[in-house]
Amino acid sequence: MTQRSLEKLLRPSSIAVVGASDDPTKVSGRPIAYLKRYGFAGKIYPINPRRTEVQGLTCYPSIEATPGAVDLAVIAIPATAVVQTLNDCVDAGVRSCIIFSSGFSELGEEGGALQREITGIARRSGMRVLGPNCQGVFSVGTKAAPTFASAFAQGDLTVGSGAIVSQSGAVAAMLYQLLGNAGSGIQYYVATGNESDVTVADVMLDVVRDPEVSVVLGYLEDLKDPDGLADAGQVARQEDKPILVLKSGRTAEGKVAASSHTGALAGDDDAVDEFFHKHGIVRVGDLIELAAFSQMFGQKRRAAGRRVAVITNSGGLGVMVVDQCKALGLEIAVLQSDTIAGLKAMLPTFASAANPVDVTTQLLVEPRLLSRAVPLLMEDPGVDAVLASFGALGGGYDIDAIIGDLAQANDEHDALLAVGWVGSHQSIIQRLGAGGVPAAQNPSLVVRSLAAYVDFSLDRADSAGDDSATSARGAVANAATAPGLVSIPDAAAVIAAYQPLTDDGFLSEYNSKRLLDQLGVFQMSDVLVAPTSAVTDGPAQLTFPVVAKASSPAIPHKSDHGLVVLNIADEQRLETVVKELIARAEDIAPMGTVEGVLVQKMVKGGFEAFLGVKQDPTFGHVVVVGAGGVFIEIFSDYQCVLPPISYGYALDKVKALKAFPAMTGARGGDEADYEALARLVVEVGRVVEHLGDALLEMDLNPVKVLPKGQGVAVLDALIRLRTDESAARMS
Amino acid sequence: MTQRSLEKLLRPSSIAVVGASDDPTKVSGRPIAYLKRYGFAGKIYPINPRRTEVQGLTCYPSIEATPGAVDLAVIAIPATAVVQTLNDCVDAGVRSCIIFSSGFSELGEEGGALQREITGIARRSGMRVLGPNCQGVFSVGTKAAPTFASAFAQGDLTVGSGAIVSQSGAVAAMLYQLLGNAGSGIQYYVATGNESDVTVADVMLDVVRDPEVSVVLGYLEDLKDPDGLADAGQVARQEDKPILVLKSGRTAEGKVAASSHTGALAGDDDAVDEFFHKHGIVRVGDLIELAAFSQMFGQKRRAAGRRVAVITNSGGLGVMVVDQCKALGLEIAVLQSDTIAGLKAMLPTFASAANPVDVTTQLLVEPRLLSRAVPLLMEDPGVDAVLASFGALGGGYDIDAIIGDLAQANDEHDALLAVGWVGSHQSIIQRLGAGGVPAAQNPSLVVRSLAAYVDFSLDRADSAGDDSATSARGAVANAATAPGLVSIPDAAAVIAAYQPLTDDGFLSEYNSKRLLDQLGVFQMSDVLVAPTSAVTDGPAQLTFPVVAKASSPAIPHKSDHGLVVLNIADEQRLETVVKELIARAEDIAPMGTVEGVLVQKMVKGGFEAFLGVKQDPTFGHVVVVGAGGVFIEIFSDYQCVLPPISYGYALDKVKALKAFPAMTGARGGDEADYEALARLVVEVGRVVEHLGDALLEMDLNPVKVLPKGQGVAVLDALIRLRTDESAARMS
Repeated sequence: MTQRSLEKLLRPSSIAVVGASDDPTKVSGRPIAYLKRYGFAGKIYPINPRRTEVQGLTCYPSIEATPGAVDLAVIAIPATAVVQTLNDCVDAGVRSCIIFSSGFSELGEEGGALQREITGIARRSGMRVLGPNCQGVFSVGTKAAPTFASAFAQGDLTVGSGAIVSQSGAVAAMLYQLLGNAGSGIQYYVATGNESDVTVADVMLDVVRDPEVSVVLGYLEDLKDPDGLADAGQVARQEDKPILVLKSGRTAEGKVAASSHTGALAGDDDAVDEFFHKHGIVRVGDLIELAAFSQMFGQKRRAAGRRVAVITNSGGLGVMVVDQCKALGLEIAVLQSDTIAGLKAMLPTFASAANPVDVTTQLLVEPRLLSRAVPLLMEDPGVDAVLASFGALGGGYDIDAIIGDLAQANDEHDALLAVGWVGSHQSIIQRLGAGGVPAAQNPSLVVRSLAAYVDFSLDRADSAGDDSATSARGAVANAATAPGLVSIPDAAAVIAAYQPLTDDGFLSEYNSKRLLDQLGVFQMSDVLVAPTSAVTDGPAQLTFPVVAKASSPAIPHKSDHGLVVLNIADEQRLETVVKELIARAEDIAPMGTVEGVLVQKMVKGGFEAFLGVKQDPTFGHVVVVGAGGVFIEIFSDYQCVLPPISYGYALDKVKALKAFPAMTGARGGDEADYEALARLVVEVGRVVEHLGDALLEMDLNPVKVLPKGQGVAVLDALIRLRTDESAARMS
Repeated sequence: MTQRSLEKLLRPSSIAVVGASDDPTKVSGRPIAYLKRYGFAGKIYPINPRRTEVQGLTCYPSIEATPGAVDLAVIAIPATAVVQTLNDCVDAGVRSCIIFSSGFSELGEEGGALQREITGIARRSGMRVLGPNCQGVFSVGTKAAPTFASAFAQGDLTVGSGAIVSQSGAVAAMLYQLLGNAGSGIQYYVATGNESDVTVADVMLDVVRDPEVSVVLGYLEDLKDPDGLADAGQVARQEDKPILVLKSGRTAEGKVAASSHTGALAGDDDAVDEFFHKHGIVRVGDLIELAAFSQMFGQKRRAAGRRVAVITNSGGLGVMVVDQCKALGLEIAVLQSDTIAGLKAMLPTFASAANPVDVTTQLLVEPRLLSRAVPLLMEDPGVDAVLASFGALGGGYDIDAIIGDLAQANDEHDALLAVGWVGSHQSIIQRLGAGGVPAAQNPSLVVRSLAAYVDFSLDRADSAGDDSATSARGAVANAATAPGLVSIPDAAAVIAAYQPLTDDGFLSEYNSKRLLDQLGVFQMSDVLVAPTSAVTDGPAQLTFPVVAKASSPAIPHKSDHGLVVLNIADEQRLETVVKELIARAEDIAPMGTVEGVLVQKMVKGGFEAFLGVKQDPTFGHVVVVGAGGVFIEIFSDYQCVLPPISYGYALDKVKALKAFPAMTGARGGDEADYEALARLVVEVGRVVEHLGDALLEMDLNPVKVLPKGQGVAVLDALIRLRTDESAARMS
């Protein structure tokens, strides 16, 4: 966790603006205009050698010339002058800087070099730097507005409990506008731009601790700081606050070239999903969701369960909302008989008192109907949330009464309340939101947001009972919970014993398995028959039928070359096969790389799975576990897991496979030893951590999950280690 | 197709209002108020025995007393008086009625009986009846407003080219409001209520032919009239207009009980999806989509392809829109070098001239930038659609110029244009919509709508080349296109030969296969060894190894009872197995139902599929084809097909299976004879049509799809015919 505080960047007492303009509409004039407009109580020091006064304030020729200490300097000058100014700031004891100027890494290598100088200054001096190429900060608590965002040029500030933290200034501005439209608002508005020093994660880590902040809204284009985000996720869990993120570039076409099966299968975005999931950060689909979800997630109370009551003025709309609830895993509450009786007493006979409750046009006749009906639903012990869904409330309806009654019911009850109001004027949504009631014009959006919030609430409630806040998501591997684990010997020493590799870094199947055996992942029972040996020289007894495979690191994909022979019934046939395989392999592989023929017991039956390790450009190693065979690729049935991996988390991931029911015996087959598969995931996770950078990729495929109690059989294994050449090819 | 015209209902020249009130705000007063307000040019006859004048018009004591012919009578009186009034209308030669009154089938059986009387009157007299329990009609062309919808009480009429046809009045009103908010509007507004006579489909069939209508928006809670909807879909195709529908009740919990595998697997909603798909009707997900899609689909021009150019003022937003496009199957256009050069010339150096095009804040500096940039993109021959995505355009931007430039570009170019404008005021969306540019505040919604429109356009373009407008979707089974089909003998005669069945209507596997053999579906090679025969009595030679199964209609699921023995190597072993199976079966099955032991060649390999027929409460028989084995249920990999089924359509469905790549040999296995599977689907479709109601359910499972050219092998078959008892259990 970062030791370098953002206190002076986000909550400064004195702000200097280098390059300050007298024109309050210019980029370099806006910070002072905004500081004055919003009533910043600290010192403001315009810096401009060509002026003595700027926007009515005394102007100073240089940062050194200011009469008091400077907590934060805003730098609004051409890129070429930035580095010198930063050095001046360091000399003057400035604690933090915001660089508006563009012309850095966004322009490619030339600008990149200049930006690295900024990073160096920040790292060496301890002065925190936001930007360059950023819109800056608005910090509501201190009224500090060192930003040129045009969002603050006009209109009222929309204050609320959200913290917008975005790599893009334009996106931050859109979010600010969307929050305002929804009747909520901000405590912080931070655009981090090129992130030479301060990242989105750094800002999140700070603002999530602010008692005035109830929800953090993040926008990310690059995951530059995964460790920081993981820390932010952990602190958010401790603070019991949600972080919502929108990460763009979901379907990125550029992907790191990978030669393993696992690498080719799992997309980068799967690892991103898993990363956020693991760290309790909620990923949303688009900007509209981010703003709408923040209303729902910014509430003080959490969902106690999934049971939803729908109240509507249209039977048709009620049915549609019920459909959407069911599709997203919410349950339709069964109302208690008292509740139904109470509703019947207040509704006409042609209305529906069952869930979904249809008040029909009675709301026209009795404008205060909701003041009685909604509390009745919220008090029903079988109801966790009430979705009020309205539409076509035209002339004659008392909109003020409806809004007031909903806001009051929301204030006075523990169940959740949310409103979808089709075709309503934006001001209705805004007023509901300002009254604390999550609302949108689109009922589907409200249902999505509620469903996500219920998941989040129940997940937090589950993990609240754990000793460690992080263990629920498996951030800590705990050997005690995983039966059958053994300790791993010194990795470097083990690896050294497996040289030489191919240039590409591949180990043969035999050596891959031997390495995993030595690392304690599983016990190898395969026998290697060397080219010059007889089968009977093997160190262990063979149980026929067996499988024979030529073994050479130069031929990682043996089946493609006809170098695998199945179902060999006896020793005599094996002798023949071994000779043939060695001859064939020596035709293909470079001289001296054919280690011999690997002979293993033929395994029949079992559930076919695979397990692998791939390299992710952001997260490093990702363990992937999935259903095997032809269905791997067709149905994309796999789960990503980021090490370290606890047994409980691995088991959750195995159970999350779509094919998991096929391992439970529920479909008529044997119950498979899926717990052994989960243990294998843990073991592989430990190997990944111990081998570290030395490991490039791993495929265990197929892994047969045998009947309950019989464990797993790793039928093939392929490990690729880091060599100079293999590393170059991967980058 | 219906012969009974809706002309006088939807475009009347004279309207009587039975029960007319002098109070223009009452339900019974509104039709006359609206007719006057909107300037209906025809005759208006208030009918009320207690008044001589209503809202300034001469009032008549009865429908017979009107001085001229009545095209349409609106009935706004208590339910108990409705039938008599309808009879009076018939006697008076009234051509159509709209019944506002409630108190009919929505109240259960008592009201249902009353409603059936209405239906009877309509059927016998030929007078068309809309309702009861309906909001009525607004027909813009004739200014006929026989409705009490409060949507028309205030404000301007929002005229456009949409036709809203809804079973629910409240939903119709919401749609009307949403269209108005989006700057589009209506030609027709029809709420059909309880549909005693006129259905949504009837209305669609009429309005889709109106030259002023470019898109039909339907809302359905019940599919009462599937044949009518199919007709409407066909006419819409001929008219080259889209019908969009929202069908609620997607996740209905109530389902017809079914005992076949197929019945249990495929949900009712799958059949609904397939029904709309087959008839070229576009199903949308929610109300907001329905309104937004109608803007996109209401355009005159269609999409020529999938290639999208994105232009934005925010790089972040551009990336997000590109993500969404890719996720929905749109392609990111590669701009021609001329286009890029042109953009570069008009943009600052830090802007992006590649796709997505980021104009940055240049739009602030040069307000008319889009008048040049957007046409440049629309003229690029590699661009089929331009998505303009804006956000955070606050003070200083010339919104009028932006809207005008977009509308003009849209008018003057053939490529599609659509706008997503985050956080914009509703009036901006409204103005863009009124200018013919599909627009929404949510860019994701715009991308969804564009993607659906591209699919629709390309699909229509594909089918335009066909001789028959319906053949592309397989509405006509064409034996000539399906090699290897044979004609089917008289179904009733065939069925008679298979009596007796069990009470449940099950045939034994042997008789199921024999029936399919006789119907020409496939040639059965199985041999039935009767309880008293020896194996050598069999009529055909056996090729070992074989499979033996006890055959009795009383035991439809043989494996569950250990009545299947695989891999029998020779005749001697077979003799033993046959005796054992017969003994075991006779222990389980009722006396006299064990037909013997079915012996069939053991089939190894092949892709495992299944094929079945289920009963749908709305559509009758649904053919279901899918991937077999344990993965059937886990991955739900199946497709529904509604008979009649053409070979081309069946092949499309087989290719739409997720597991289809496993049949192409692409994944390393043999190429399977999936064309034979498609032929089997066609054959089963023909059997379904010939057997008609006699067939309750069918399971062919597993069906082995053998290597290319070797056809399919139906390993097991189960047919269930309609008996008194089986029919009762299904209903």
